[in-house]
Amino acid sequence: MLTTLRMRGWAKASRTVARRCYSDLNAPKAQQLKVNGDRLWHNIHHTAQWSAPGATTEAGGLCRLSGTSYDKMARDWFRDQVKSLGATSYHVNGVGAQFATFSGDAENVPPIAMGSHLDSVATGGRFDGPLGVLGALEVVQSMKEQGIKTHAPIALINWTNEEGARFFPPLGSSSVYARQNSVDALHASKANDGSGDTLGAALHSIGYVGDGPNTFEEFPISAHFEIHVEQQKSLEQAGKSIGWVDGWHGISMFEMTFQGEDGHANTYDMEGRKDTLVGASKVITAVEELAFSSNGRSTTTNIQSGPVGACNIQSWTKIVFCVMHPELSALEQMGRTAEEKAQNIAVAAGLGLEVSRILHLEPGTFWPEAVDCVKRACGDRGMAAPTLTAHDSTMTTLVCPTAMVFARGKDGISHCAREWSTHEDCAESALTLGRAVLNFDRMLEEMQ
Amino acid sequence: MLTTLRMRGWAKASRTVARRCYSDLNAPKAQQLKVNGDRLWHNIHHTAQWSAPGATTEAGGLCRLSGTSYDKMARDWFRDQVKSLGATSYHVNGVGAQFATFSGDAENVPPIAMGSHLDSVATGGRFDGPLGVLGALEVVQSMKEQGIKTHAPIALINWTNEEGARFFPPLGSSSVYARQNSVDALHASKANDGSGDTLGAALHSIGYVGDGPNTFEEFPISAHFEIHVEQQKSLEQAGKSIGWVDGWHGISMFEMTFQGEDGHANTYDMEGRKDTLVGASKVITAVEELAFSSNGRSTTTNIQSGPVGACNIQSWTKIVFCVMHPELSALEQMGRTAEEKAQNIAVAAGLGLEVSRILHLEPGTFWPEAVDCVKRACGDRGMAAPTLTAHDSTMTTLVCPTAMVFARGKDGISHCAREWSTHEDCAESALTLGRAVLNFDRMLEEMQ
Repeated sequence: MLTTLRMRGWAKASRTVARRCYSDLNAPKAQQLKVNGDRLWHNIHHTAQWSAPGATTEAGGLCRLSGTSYDKMARDWFRDQVKSLGATSYHVNGVGAQFATFSGDAENVPPIAMGSHLDSVATGGRFDGPLGVLGALEVVQSMKEQGIKTHAPIALINWTNEEGARFFPPLGSSSVYARQNSVDALHASKANDGSGDTLGAALHSIGYVGDGPNTFEEFPISAHFEIHVEQQKSLEQAGKSIGWVDGWHGISMFEMTFQGEDGHANTYDMEGRKDTLVGASKVITAVEELAFSSNGRSTTTNIQSGPVGACNIQSWTKIVFCVMHPELSALEQMGRTAEEKAQNIAVAAGLGLEVSRILHLEPGTFWPEAVDCVKRACGDRGMAAPTLTAHDSTMTTLVCPTAMVFARGKDGISHCAREWSTHEDCAESALTLGRAVLNFDRMLEEMQ
Repeated sequence: MLTTLRMRGWAKASRTVARRCYSDLNAPKAQQLKVNGDRLWHNIHHTAQWSAPGATTEAGGLCRLSGTSYDKMARDWFRDQVKSLGATSYHVNGVGAQFATFSGDAENVPPIAMGSHLDSVATGGRFDGPLGVLGALEVVQSMKEQGIKTHAPIALINWTNEEGARFFPPLGSSSVYARQNSVDALHASKANDGSGDTLGAALHSIGYVGDGPNTFEEFPISAHFEIHVEQQKSLEQAGKSIGWVDGWHGISMFEMTFQGEDGHANTYDMEGRKDTLVGASKVITAVEELAFSSNGRSTTTNIQSGPVGACNIQSWTKIVFCVMHPELSALEQMGRTAEEKAQNIAVAAGLGLEVSRILHLEPGTFWPEAVDCVKRACGDRGMAAPTLTAHDSTMTTLVCPTAMVFARGKDGISHCAREWSTHEDCAESALTLGRAVLNFDRMLEEMQ
């Protein structure tokens, strides 16, 4: 399980890229780059066809859960695209991540990577994830068309199960890449619906367990850049098309399992029952109140209880919730308070309680030298904004210079079929991604 | 759906049995009857082998959900038993109920039925249901061995899906028998786990959809008697082995579906969310408080929410709960109050709310002439006690004289693997059932 995602010593040691101070101008190749916004827009909507049918799809959104046939269709398309663009290598690794490499002038420099994820949540939009992969693809295609050859090789990555929507934990293959999880543990990722399915079996079923490199050590990269649609309103409110992501807020996820006693729903006295669903309901309410009193955020994202039936006191209930805060000490206090409240509720109701912190992402900042490349690429059209959630980049930043580009979203809507970003803002974000990569590439070239 | 289960006019019209006042002595054949307590005890534990493996079975309980392979094994055994006892007819009806008839001296009198159910809840004991069927079987076998021939024919019935544990609604085939539900509607009974399975498909899969009679009109009976383990402590506290059930408490079940909006669990502001799981949790707590303030009972028995995932605000949540009260006006007031509280919570949270009362059993009393037969059979060893829940007999009582025998249970434990009744109390209950039937039979004979 993901436990502590803060930067580790060995990750810090990999900061081999010197922090040179560049001007606020873009590198020459970055100034030269253009992208084809129409093609990107087409690809976003073309690939959205690979979505489970249902309300989300009908509403213009995307339901492409990891390891499904729809995921396979999108993956196959991505494979065909990178091959037709002349990738010099293409690998699927043991947890399904797709790595395509395009040669640069220097073969002894690790590639600069652009990556994100093609999977979505069950009720997702068309931008969260796909924009990062398709924007990166657009950059490579445009550079090829415009004869822009990089110093370092370029890698395109489609990371597996970033969302953790079908299988927990999220940040799947990128957490393995950053050595926060093992291949075996990721294969054992359990279905959130309690069905007993695993990510490993699902990846095998779609033919996406390969023998490619799994970790940074096996496939080192010089940097990782990622576009993501912004999931709040700061760019929209400031009238900015794009942004550079300076850091992320902290997140802790908890799983709590309440244990009571089986009993008849109609005949039992109210006194003396051990009803876990009532206990869990009080905790869910308390966790919401905690967010308000802590000036943070919280959400209960899953509940299951049993026995299933029409006439049983619920003798077990499992809930999963997350707490979020920009400050580490406040985040940890929220977690402690939530656990204390739950324990008090359980004791008062005579319930057993097991608590696991199943994910903990401390707040942090991306690498300044990488962020600076994005900032210069944004120029006046952009502004700084933190992300309030985790991304594959919050994993790669543990091992290599990483930064993110935000594309303006509409009304902060996210994980919802109504998520939206405009043709223009998507194109701007792809251009910014390409320029940031070329700025970083120039920095690498000058270091040699 | 089961909506109103109160006695209907056409049911009242079927009260063709005159209410004669008998002495408190048992009929001669009833006084003669003995039962084989060892055989009954053996059958209870022998048939408990047909149970899904798991914690319930390991703890000595029973998990025999309707329409499963375990249900089929128990049904097949029951079929073989009644056939070997010389049933003159055996039918499986369109909703899986098994009817076996044994001839009496008079062929123009509808049979006196003894019935209950072989299905259990997921975490059931070995007595709730099976004792009623196996006790009835023991009565027929003992009468045969002892040469006791009834005036009216005798019917043994194994009713389908009394528990409603796997498929809703409960009181499956007996509700069809009493014209409270149709065969088609019962076949469409939906799985409580949200899987989309139906009772009809499950019955077909185990080969238990037959062409036997479905309703009282198609298969009239003179009376219905049923043993059930008591699901409270009144017999135990009074030191009585058995009881006659004078009536039942009322039950209303509600399904509430909350509709909110999809959104990102990490990035959304707390204000303005439409989180259905928080709303439903407040309703669950309010429904519990309502039971205390109303001097009634309540239980939330099911919760489902979505979208499934690690990072989604829950945009829909469905809960099912029941409220119970011995008085009709108070029961209906509990229902109205629960709905008002839920509507207030939904409005305050900006949620949509759909409410359905999916079952409503008004409190009532069994037929005095049938209860009197049980009371005389109990003699000093018994006492009156109401049942706090529904049984197949609360359906048959809508169409014909019906009464129930209670066997003392341990600590009021029910719908739990630790449910228990002793060898002696089970035997006493079977003897009482047999005597009650013979008392009723004598009454029928004297009427002719």
